[in-house]
Amino acid sequence: MSKDSTKASTPDYATDKKSLAFSEQHYFSSYDHFGIHEEMLKDRVRTLSYRSAIMKNKHLFKDKIVLDVGCGTGVLSMFAAQAGAKHVIAVDMSNIIEMAQQVIDLNGFSDKITLLRGKLEDVKMPYDKVDIIISEWMGYFLLYESMLDTVLVARDRYLKEGGLIFPDKASIQIAMIEDAEYKDEKIHFWENPQELYGFDYSPFVKVAMSEPLVDIVDNKAVVTSHREIIEFDLNTVTIEELAFHKNFKLKVTQDSLVHALLAWFDIEFPSDTKQGKVVFSTGPHAKYTHWKQTVFYLDEVLDVKRGETIEGSIASRPNKFNNRDLDIELEWDFKASGPEDTRATSGKYNYFLR
Amino acid sequence: MSKDSTKASTPDYATDKKSLAFSEQHYFSSYDHFGIHEEMLKDRVRTLSYRSAIMKNKHLFKDKIVLDVGCGTGVLSMFAAQAGAKHVIAVDMSNIIEMAQQVIDLNGFSDKITLLRGKLEDVKMPYDKVDIIISEWMGYFLLYESMLDTVLVARDRYLKEGGLIFPDKASIQIAMIEDAEYKDEKIHFWENPQELYGFDYSPFVKVAMSEPLVDIVDNKAVVTSHREIIEFDLNTVTIEELAFHKNFKLKVTQDSLVHALLAWFDIEFPSDTKQGKVVFSTGPHAKYTHWKQTVFYLDEVLDVKRGETIEGSIASRPNKFNNRDLDIELEWDFKASGPEDTRATSGKYNYFLR
Repeated sequence: MSKDSTKASTPDYATDKKSLAFSEQHYFSSYDHFGIHEEMLKDRVRTLSYRSAIMKNKHLFKDKIVLDVGCGTGVLSMFAAQAGAKHVIAVDMSNIIEMAQQVIDLNGFSDKITLLRGKLEDVKMPYDKVDIIISEWMGYFLLYESMLDTVLVARDRYLKEGGLIFPDKASIQIAMIEDAEYKDEKIHFWENPQELYGFDYSPFVKVAMSEPLVDIVDNKAVVTSHREIIEFDLNTVTIEELAFHKNFKLKVTQDSLVHALLAWFDIEFPSDTKQGKVVFSTGPHAKYTHWKQTVFYLDEVLDVKRGETIEGSIASRPNKFNNRDLDIELEWDFKASGPEDTRATSGKYNYFLR
Repeated sequence: MSKDSTKASTPDYATDKKSLAFSEQHYFSSYDHFGIHEEMLKDRVRTLSYRSAIMKNKHLFKDKIVLDVGCGTGVLSMFAAQAGAKHVIAVDMSNIIEMAQQVIDLNGFSDKITLLRGKLEDVKMPYDKVDIIISEWMGYFLLYESMLDTVLVARDRYLKEGGLIFPDKASIQIAMIEDAEYKDEKIHFWENPQELYGFDYSPFVKVAMSEPLVDIVDNKAVVTSHREIIEFDLNTVTIEELAFHKNFKLKVTQDSLVHALLAWFDIEFPSDTKQGKVVFSTGPHAKYTHWKQTVFYLDEVLDVKRGETIEGSIASRPNKFNNRDLDIELEWDFKASGPEDTRATSGKYNYFLR
């Protein structure tokens, strides 16, 4: 049997969700389905990074009050309890927390970990302040699903002066890729009547273009340098600052065609020792994670030579109808480096990550 | 880049869905995402079967009024128009119909195909009766998402006495499979603390068990005969009859272990000629379709020998909280055939397809 099993993801209607707005219902109930938790637990880069970051810094957790934002099955809370935390408060909106309670009890953490079901903004916290916040909030393109907003609310409301956030640094990285074959399959497919029973489906090209693809990209497809376009310091960043507009310059590393911009994110946990420092990357050069990478196809193909530069900018902001979705705008500008060389192109495209 | 790209599927909030119940909003808006239409159009077994069934029976479509229930991107409506239909009324709830309109116009079918957005039960039909209903309503395990209900409403309300339904026969088929490796990965994973960071996650076994897996199964995994457990004749079946409870007997075809029951469906289109007859199967012996097959793991392993018989029953009914989900109950009973052979087991498990 192949591994790409598909499951329909629908909510648990036995739960009373009448008091939630539709977009909230949809978001939270998608986590009801346990498949996503299976995927996250099987993502060993993700889970072992959290475990290392906590276990290598036991001295920071010892006898501390810890808040786990969006605890899911409770695995991070159990790491914190193992590290010596005095008490862990674990909050999740989803009914997965009922399963988490069984796991917490079974593993002997009932007196160390308190699970609270609800929105972080609404639950009644047993402490005014906590020493440490832990959370695995990252979405595709780092910011999709805007769960970081909730972590920042938790920080402002509950984190002690000088308290720690695991992780506390997150950056978005980009590069350009050559990817003719898959662009054919995902984009040009729509302008090929032979594949479409003789019909002209070309209006779908712009729909396909506007949706960034979340997929595994081979590092060999990368044909430019990579750049960090933004780093968020979770200790200080505001919700407003999660919307950004940044310029970039990428250096071409081999003669090639360019079909898309590739984005991924890197994560860093705090520590007060060198040995305690834990980082991980979701880039194409790193080990597979369930976040894969995010591909933004350009609506043209750039013909570039080694040593040339592609300039541009990328802007991201929450969608006004559903702030868990992202509106992303990409601009690019390329001129050949040679004096008589007329290769030049610039463009712009709007994407919706939803 | 690999082909198993994942896309978050969320609704289009720009559309006013205030008048819909939550479960309806969720269902219909998932089709807003164009990825599912890409998958359906790329499923050539599905789409070419419809095309053949229509094109080989042009004489049945000539000058007829056709209703397309759940038209999506409009491809079946265009086939019907090509086959000579006088007028096609195509109904869909999703905003994909806006894209369908562009495709219909671009391909010159504007005067032959009328698109109506809304629930079939609510839209104002330009005809009292139609000659033919076409619809691609099938879900996983045939009945998941209950779109057949809507086709039967359309039949009772709009189909002329003696009118035709494409397709008009649908059957559910079953067999038993040996599938140790994947059962380990999906089910036993949850009782293996080594894979779960040392923690006991065994409460998740029953959750994993209760969700049938939709996946591609190799025909070599099938170790019994297969049986049709039910056939629906769309000309006469009632919505109530879609809930069923049927017994089965499967003959073991090789000495082996049995881990799961496998289900798939077969489809048949009407014709008045032998050459005009079109059928297709979504079974493991047939070519890939996006429906794949559906796997129900047993909570035990049967040890069976060639020539022995596994008896049982399977019941399916809509979930009472969301009638697009299915509650499925499976019972099995096995006794070794030899007189001194004590191998015997019987069991029962409840599944939720959602």
